[in-house]
Amino acid sequence: MDKKVKVNASILIIGNEILSGRTKDTNTSTLAIWLNSIGVNVDEVRVIPDIEKIIVDTLNLLRSKYDYVFTTGGIGPTHDDITAQSVAKAFEIKYEIHKEAYKILESYYKPGEFNEGRQKMAWMPENAKLILNPTSGAPGFNVKNVFSLPGVPSILKSMLGGLTNEIVGGKPIKSLTISLRTVESEIANSLTKVQNDNKKVEIGSYPFFHAGRLGVSIVIRSDDQSKIDNCNLQILKFVKEKKIEMVDR
Amino acid sequence: MDKKVKVNASILIIGNEILSGRTKDTNTSTLAIWLNSIGVNVDEVRVIPDIEKIIVDTLNLLRSKYDYVFTTGGIGPTHDDITAQSVAKAFEIKYEIHKEAYKILESYYKPGEFNEGRQKMAWMPENAKLILNPTSGAPGFNVKNVFSLPGVPSILKSMLGGLTNEIVGGKPIKSLTISLRTVESEIANSLTKVQNDNKKVEIGSYPFFHAGRLGVSIVIRSDDQSKIDNCNLQILKFVKEKKIEMVDR
Repeated sequence: MDKKVKVNASILIIGNEILSGRTKDTNTSTLAIWLNSIGVNVDEVRVIPDIEKIIVDTLNLLRSKYDYVFTTGGIGPTHDDITAQSVAKAFEIKYEIHKEAYKILESYYKPGEFNEGRQKMAWMPENAKLILNPTSGAPGFNVKNVFSLPGVPSILKSMLGGLTNEIVGGKPIKSLTISLRTVESEIANSLTKVQNDNKKVEIGSYPFFHAGRLGVSIVIRSDDQSKIDNCNLQILKFVKEKKIEMVDR
Repeated sequence: MDKKVKVNASILIIGNEILSGRTKDTNTSTLAIWLNSIGVNVDEVRVIPDIEKIIVDTLNLLRSKYDYVFTTGGIGPTHDDITAQSVAKAFEIKYEIHKEAYKILESYYKPGEFNEGRQKMAWMPENAKLILNPTSGAPGFNVKNVFSLPGVPSILKSMLGGLTNEIVGGKPIKSLTISLRTVESEIANSLTKVQNDNKKVEIGSYPFFHAGRLGVSIVIRSDDQSKIDNCNLQILKFVKEKKIEMVDR
């Protein structure tokens, strides 16, 4: 059977610390790069507060709209960690002690250290599939098309390897970046022509300041390498004609 | 007249480069910290692709739901910059050359350099109010409760000063951070009690790894300093009882 051509996902970031500006989200980038590599496109990201009703409503909307939903944050031991109970409510299933998670946590901590706070991390939606955590013991969990991961970036990152085989993606999304010593307005018209000639390819243009100098990165994205190559040739052609310098970036 | 007690906003990040993971969003944090300081709480953030219909629909939803909407990205000169035309469509008003913006851009560039690409940046929703750009000339714009800013973080940052008087906020949101050399599960129960005693205060708990050591930052947020002080005292009490070390962070 052929793979589904387009597989999409949304990312739901649960956390007041992102909305207050105290913490900058980096998990979106980590998840998106990983998902692209296994053929899943991220179509939407939402950041919402630690409020149960909002989490439940948003989850129910996103899980019906996208093939996959990845949540980050809210699965620790403190009072503001309410993702597991919210996922259970969204699916209208029980929120209970997960035996396997309990065992993992019990053996992770030294005798006597598996206290009430830590036991809370074994509470999960009924029959959730665990997402193993090689960094700090406490697992994430998966219910149908919803995957719940922690908010701490280094821990989240370490859990993706074990998850790759659980996700059925489409064709991997490839990208090529061409960086130029120019400004956007110098290439805008030429680039529009390339985009119009290659409607199924996503072409983005991003100005940058680096080492005190201006530049523009053109990013070409598609699941079809030959289409990327074709755009690349057309872009290199006008770059040469305009005598624009290419830079590494 | 008393100020409205709660004023909220959402941030709409328009850009494939965030959804692909290529670029990490930092504008949310910049906007949120600035908005909090003038009494506006950020209740939701969405990241969406450079697709007109999605921008129009999302804008119409957010502008009816929140007091303010701030968009970032998509106001440059290239084909993927479609925020201005999308805002015009959302409000069902004309998308046309803005005379004042045209003049600003014309005088910003050297004679002969105000080319077609750059002229595109003078196209705006009818009667938009300009948001001046002290860094790179091209202004942002404001229609009713929607404020459209560029995606480049340093430029966005430089435009907020001129915008502060345009926003009518509530009481400024204050916050206090207490950082401890402990792990979350050691303080989870005590912290839950403090939260239950202070329901109107937002108390968050965030683990960190710094210089190879674990810690937890407790963040107390409220528009009422006396409520923050009260929580602080209750937290310091259990910190002392548990002999937990406080750290700078």
